[in-house]
Amino acid sequence: MTAAPRDVNLDPMTVISLTTDFGNQNGFVGTMKGVIWSIAPDAQIADISHEIPPQDIRSGAIALWRAAPFFPAGSVHIAVIDPGVGTARRPIAARLGDQFFVLPDNGLITPMLEDAEQAGAPIELVHLDQPRYWLEKVFTTFHGRDIFSPAGAHLAAGVPLAHLGTRINDPVRRPLPRPTRTADGWMASILLIDVFGNCTTSLRVADVGDLSRLTLLLPSGQRVEGVLPSYGHAGVGDLVAVTDSEGFIEIAVVNGSAAKACQLKLDDPIQVSVHA
Amino acid sequence: MTAAPRDVNLDPMTVISLTTDFGNQNGFVGTMKGVIWSIAPDAQIADISHEIPPQDIRSGAIALWRAAPFFPAGSVHIAVIDPGVGTARRPIAARLGDQFFVLPDNGLITPMLEDAEQAGAPIELVHLDQPRYWLEKVFTTFHGRDIFSPAGAHLAAGVPLAHLGTRINDPVRRPLPRPTRTADGWMASILLIDVFGNCTTSLRVADVGDLSRLTLLLPSGQRVEGVLPSYGHAGVGDLVAVTDSEGFIEIAVVNGSAAKACQLKLDDPIQVSVHA
Amino acid sequence: MTAAPRDVNLDPMTVISLTTDFGNQNGFVGTMKGVIWSIAPDAQIADISHEIPPQDIRSGAIALWRAAPFFPAGSVHIAVIDPGVGTARRPIAARLGDQFFVLPDNGLITPMLEDAEQAGAPIELVHLDQPRYWLEKVFTTFHGRDIFSPAGAHLAAGVPLAHLGTRINDPVRRPLPRPTRTADGWMASILLIDVFGNCTTSLRVADVGDLSRLTLLLPSGQRVEGVLPSYGHAGVGDLVAVTDSEGFIEIAVVNGSAAKACQLKLDDPIQVSVHA
Repeated sequence: MTAAPRDVNLDPMTVISLTTDFGNQNGFVGTMKGVIWSIAPDAQIADISHEIPPQDIRSGAIALWRAAPFFPAGSVHIAVIDPGVGTARRPIAARLGDQFFVLPDNGLITPMLEDAEQAGAPIELVHLDQPRYWLEKVFTTFHGRDIFSPAGAHLAAGVPLAHLGTRINDPVRRPLPRPTRTADGWMASILLIDVFGNCTTSLRVADVGDLSRLTLLLPSGQRVEGVLPSYGHAGVGDLVAVTDSEGFIEIAVVNGSAAKACQLKLDDPIQVSVHA
Repeated sequence: MTAAPRDVNLDPMTVISLTTDFGNQNGFVGTMKGVIWSIAPDAQIADISHEIPPQDIRSGAIALWRAAPFFPAGSVHIAVIDPGVGTARRPIAARLGDQFFVLPDNGLITPMLEDAEQAGAPIELVHLDQPRYWLEKVFTTFHGRDIFSPAGAHLAAGVPLAHLGTRINDPVRRPLPRPTRTADGWMASILLIDVFGNCTTSLRVADVGDLSRLTLLLPSGQRVEGVLPSYGHAGVGDLVAVTDSEGFIEIAVVNGSAAKACQLKLDDPIQVSVHA
Repeated sequence: MTAAPRDVNLDPMTVISLTTDFGNQNGFVGTMKGVIWSIAPDAQIADISHEIPPQDIRSGAIALWRAAPFFPAGSVHIAVIDPGVGTARRPIAARLGDQFFVLPDNGLITPMLEDAEQAGAPIELVHLDQPRYWLEKVFTTFHGRDIFSPAGAHLAAGVPLAHLGTRINDPVRRPLPRPTRTADGWMASILLIDVFGNCTTSLRVADVGDLSRLTLLLPSGQRVEGVLPSYGHAGVGDLVAVTDSEGFIEIAVVNGSAAKACQLKLDDPIQVSVHA
């Protein structure tokens, strides 16, 4: 990781994003917004997701990883999927390139951190150990409200990252599953299932050659030949492989649910072979 | 349709609304907001719904049609229910009266367009064919992020509609179902079922005479006599007809669900007769 | 209740919160935001919850009561859980300390009102009887759009509370359930179940002595000994009692659902005894 000065200009309406597993029923997220606007009244706040399955760090990391690159420079991303709340796990904040992240140190940051490392972008990580940037009273069960929201809001309001805590360089890492090479292709897996039932695999388009020469074998025994440019290039109800919106190969049923039709679950193995 | 110059003043905090079938779990909507605020940092963004049933153009059109008239002049409504994403279906934008719409050309615009036509309001439609107002890289599976959000944000930021694309006047139309006249009244249908289980019919209050003289016959054989001014005018659990909040006749169970109690589904026929 | 002049300064970006049972599917909440921004274009709007169970005034009151204290001074909280919409129940607005509330007079305000009374904070209540601060046309089934949103937006835009309606001091009250004393402790009950299945009891930490000496007896016959500072202080799957984020005693299963594991429902009795 490369040390770098904080040189991103935050305009007066800095954007803050929120990603949690708090759901939308109990008002926890509204409470966080109240805290944020008490400190950074001009911040724009976007919800990324509050329906991450409870304690599912990987799903939260993926949702944030796919959304964050589309945010303006200087955005602050607060993410709270935090099964270790109240224990010794560290709250941390980071600058990765031109984006900021505020979250528990449990691997939630890993995909964004790896991308920043691969891109050679400026990286700076701190342990949030300065209670003057938290709420006055911290409950052990709601650090999203008492630590992460105020710390993120102070960052958005212009407090330098280095003031929020002590520099660290040993964040907990939870890399996403990656495909492994096989004799005639890859053993991939289901990384993400979206609301439509589209199933994103761990195989990146950039890592394969001619898309038309791929065959995907599902656990159900079903085979998909070739990868199409989009759903619209097949008939309604067809089982297809397509390029998803992030450059991964996705299994889909046109205007239907591949997850239901093929009984696909997260982490199911997808055998990909290349034919001549 | 009437040609009209763009004469709506957009104030610096233009409102953008979002209507999609993307759900709130995967972060797609948060991503769209990141794109929008990268282009129009001062825009206020309101979610209308992201829980439109997948690919259900009509439900999406109804949700937007009921909400849009309550937005400030100059608002930009981005709607993405888009089963044809990645195919030849056109992305379009429109000015209808003092509101703007950015959406796929699949009939999603029809109810708003028909209202504007009936009101004699200024109407201007363009095919979004100017990639300089899109994201640099357009994926075939997520035009909500790559085309509709940036186009809508540029519109909100002051780019004239005519710059976004080529003028058209042949948008795809999907009119909502309308009641037909019968010997003693109307054959209507269920247009919308809300979260409470209230069932809006296609019959407008303005089209009927004395509300107290109507009888509604449901597919279950149940009859409802007369139309009340509100739920509160009957007892808890009563099956009633009321005037809904848009001037349509609605079937409701007081503090209960008419959809469940009467097993009503979308498009179910409702026979309405007028007695002496 | 104490009369008090309105002395809270509203900055130009006043925060408005929304709490309803409207769900997120049909666009009702988006419509309210359109109304609000038509009147108060600079307001920041936070959703507290729109997934309050239909007509469940108590759950709505609890969500708002837990969130409101974390909002900036001068915030306007609009809450619409309103089974009596369209009847003679009054629409009201209130100043309680440095926060404002706009809601139906059905007890939704009670927990916030009681806290303000206990704190000796300024309290001012009005009956919203001035139609010039409503939408021009008021439908009997959607006062959230036609009365509460415009009244709240006018308040946020600087209209004094006293202009919105006639002073009252007899709001409907619905106090939350409170624990009763028993020979060796308290008979408490389940006040709230959150998205994780954590079950908040009606017993406040401040009302008990040594937390380690408590035993909780659940309806299932299960016993929980002692109250821990957080979930992270026990093993995954353990049934524990913890201090929740508002100072109440909560029953939880670490990284699991106490509601499911112990079949707990709202209002279930929890017998709490103190041992030597």
